[in-house]
Amino acid sequence: MAVNFPSIDPAQLHPVAGVTLGWAEANIRKPNRKDVLVISVEEGATVAGVFTSNRFCAAPVTVCREHLARVREGGSGIRALVVNTGNANAGTGEPGLAVARETCAELARLAGIAPEQVLPFSTGVILEPLPIDRLKAGLPQALANRGPAHWYDAAQAIMTTDTLPKAASRQVTIDGHTVTLSGISKGAGMIKPNMATMLGFLAFDAAVAQPVLDALVKHAADRSFNCITIDGDTSTNDSFILIATGKSSLPAITSTESPAYAALRDAVTEMAQTLAQLIVRDGEGATKFITVQVEQGANVGECRQVAYAIGHSPLVKTAFYASDPNLGRILAAIGYAGIADLDVGKVEVYLDDVLVARAGGRNPDYREEDGQRVMKKSEIAVRVRLGRGDAQATIWTCDLSHDYVSINADYRS
Amino acid sequence: MAVNFPSIDPAQLHPVAGVTLGWAEANIRKPNRKDVLVISVEEGATVAGVFTSNRFCAAPVTVCREHLARVREGGSGIRALVVNTGNANAGTGEPGLAVARETCAELARLAGIAPEQVLPFSTGVILEPLPIDRLKAGLPQALANRGPAHWYDAAQAIMTTDTLPKAASRQVTIDGHTVTLSGISKGAGMIKPNMATMLGFLAFDAAVAQPVLDALVKHAADRSFNCITIDGDTSTNDSFILIATGKSSLPAITSTESPAYAALRDAVTEMAQTLAQLIVRDGEGATKFITVQVEQGANVGECRQVAYAIGHSPLVKTAFYASDPNLGRILAAIGYAGIADLDVGKVEVYLDDVLVARAGGRNPDYREEDGQRVMKKSEIAVRVRLGRGDAQATIWTCDLSHDYVSINADYRS
Repeated sequence: MAVNFPSIDPAQLHPVAGVTLGWAEANIRKPNRKDVLVISVEEGATVAGVFTSNRFCAAPVTVCREHLARVREGGSGIRALVVNTGNANAGTGEPGLAVARETCAELARLAGIAPEQVLPFSTGVILEPLPIDRLKAGLPQALANRGPAHWYDAAQAIMTTDTLPKAASRQVTIDGHTVTLSGISKGAGMIKPNMATMLGFLAFDAAVAQPVLDALVKHAADRSFNCITIDGDTSTNDSFILIATGKSSLPAITSTESPAYAALRDAVTEMAQTLAQLIVRDGEGATKFITVQVEQGANVGECRQVAYAIGHSPLVKTAFYASDPNLGRILAAIGYAGIADLDVGKVEVYLDDVLVARAGGRNPDYREEDGQRVMKKSEIAVRVRLGRGDAQATIWTCDLSHDYVSINADYRS
Repeated sequence: MAVNFPSIDPAQLHPVAGVTLGWAEANIRKPNRKDVLVISVEEGATVAGVFTSNRFCAAPVTVCREHLARVREGGSGIRALVVNTGNANAGTGEPGLAVARETCAELARLAGIAPEQVLPFSTGVILEPLPIDRLKAGLPQALANRGPAHWYDAAQAIMTTDTLPKAASRQVTIDGHTVTLSGISKGAGMIKPNMATMLGFLAFDAAVAQPVLDALVKHAADRSFNCITIDGDTSTNDSFILIATGKSSLPAITSTESPAYAALRDAVTEMAQTLAQLIVRDGEGATKFITVQVEQGANVGECRQVAYAIGHSPLVKTAFYASDPNLGRILAAIGYAGIADLDVGKVEVYLDDVLVARAGGRNPDYREEDGQRVMKKSEIAVRVRLGRGDAQATIWTCDLSHDYVSINADYRS
């Protein structure tokens, strides 16, 4: 029931020079499904990532942070990523950490690299031990079938409750040089700002210095994966990774001030937004794709507060599901978003182009049929003007349906 | 589908000397239902209230605050409360405020009191004009059928999506004098801390000075109505009112330091907790009543943060609905509750008496069947020990079911 999910043609996902992808059916939780992915990166690439803010972060997240820190301190570069689905290796304490390290060691042994050159990722059920023997047994298969054109298979290999694989690819010209970008993402529930049970991997063949890539990954995440919410739950495992292989003819980008950086930044951010929005479009039980845009705030923080209050409200979300213009629920959410000195008399609320509320109440010209017309659409924009300043923020979310409850009530069974 | 909702015998709801209650069928939104309630209070009573923190507070809330402020400045005491269901008179701007004042004026005219001696309350749909003519037309009927024994009818008259009327009553002996307390509440959705679409009215016949009653209403609300959540939405209309008629033989309570105050405070708080918990038991679509108790926090605020993160998580709530001990979702909620320096290695999570998680992971002695046994119950306690200090907080919530979605997708239709 994904919402206006674009058709993805595997043949249109460009290889990125310097990256190969291979998967295995390792039977981590269920048989006969791709559940292990290995992404190999040629020597000389730079890699950067942002991770969940959840204090109960998963063991692989801890290990990723350690290994990336080591690179920043001058250690050897990252050469491989390994992802398993079916088990999050989160809430697993010290034994979970040992298992994550063991995964890296085993892949390193098989690939002839050092353990700290491997980044591990897990997604799935929390609080259960990761079946490390099955994962290790699957690694040779994943390594054996690596290839540069496997982006679509890779997208399938990281799915959990996703109903569709999520991938995007494009080529851009920067300073006359072609740069190729391809990426995959996964996630459908437990999705909220500051990462969610979402994984995103985006590779491109430009060369980017480590500090610049560190800045770029944060810039892109803050405008993409950190702007989506399905249910307000921030996962333990969220990770978004950029891989810059440096194989294109574009000279290396060593400063965030260069025009080439700006061009690459915009291309990466736009693709990250696409990958993030694919997650919302395939949100658990989603029937509507909703953009919440808050304008005229005193600062971005309060705009995001209001946007998330609307985007998280079960009452607002069920009204969207019902196509019911019960728009007072949006006003209520704005009111409790936590802006203590909000002057409700200055707030305006639009549904697409329809001015619903102003001057603390319903717009006198508002007609129920206008609201009804917008609510019936599968893509809806809620626009709120706070009348306090020039800041703005946008998030993307979906409605709350019967299927959301069914999916999450049945997830483990 | 209310959860272990106690059978309420109308005959067991004691009259409170100095209070009469009358209702009308005023056809505010739907025909043939009690939708207007008038509570009359004899001269000499003190009245205090706490109200929603929502910035889009309803017009009647604004008027209540004004009228209570006037009393505190030495004006005449409150003599009547008027409640309508079917329309919240919220998000209605200046016209809504005029309508709320007109309601007070009309009731005052009919009852021979001043408009500022009336407190108005509304609950129902937001953003639609209150049909003031119907409300005014219903007032004579409500005044005509007032009586001291009408607490059960009064509880019925304030219901919206509630499936059952909510009332409680008891008598306590303080310093050898009998004090009688009776109260009603309503609310089923849009329920969150700092009040919700909930109304609570609690009257007793002790005499209490205004400043003491102001303190008491806050004390009781903070330990009852401000500790429940159904869906995390804070309503525009929430109000909790204490009425102290002063008709009992107990000498007036003029200090929060007196033993009589302590006894009354505990009786009022306990009854407020009962009335608040009735709201959760009748929560929209609720099938489980869940107590979330967070202990060993550095302060009460962080304990509440953690408790609400658990209580609001749709993933946790659907797991309870499914009786699925998918308890990693609780760990994830603790992790994203916002305690930046939380040491997850010190956190312990219990489900009733079952120790589920410790030392950052699953308790080695935990067995799935123990978790399953607790999850199948209709009353479940989640206990979290943070290992940071001595503070604690408790909230009450319910699960998230298919019926919640149905009720809120269909509310206006």
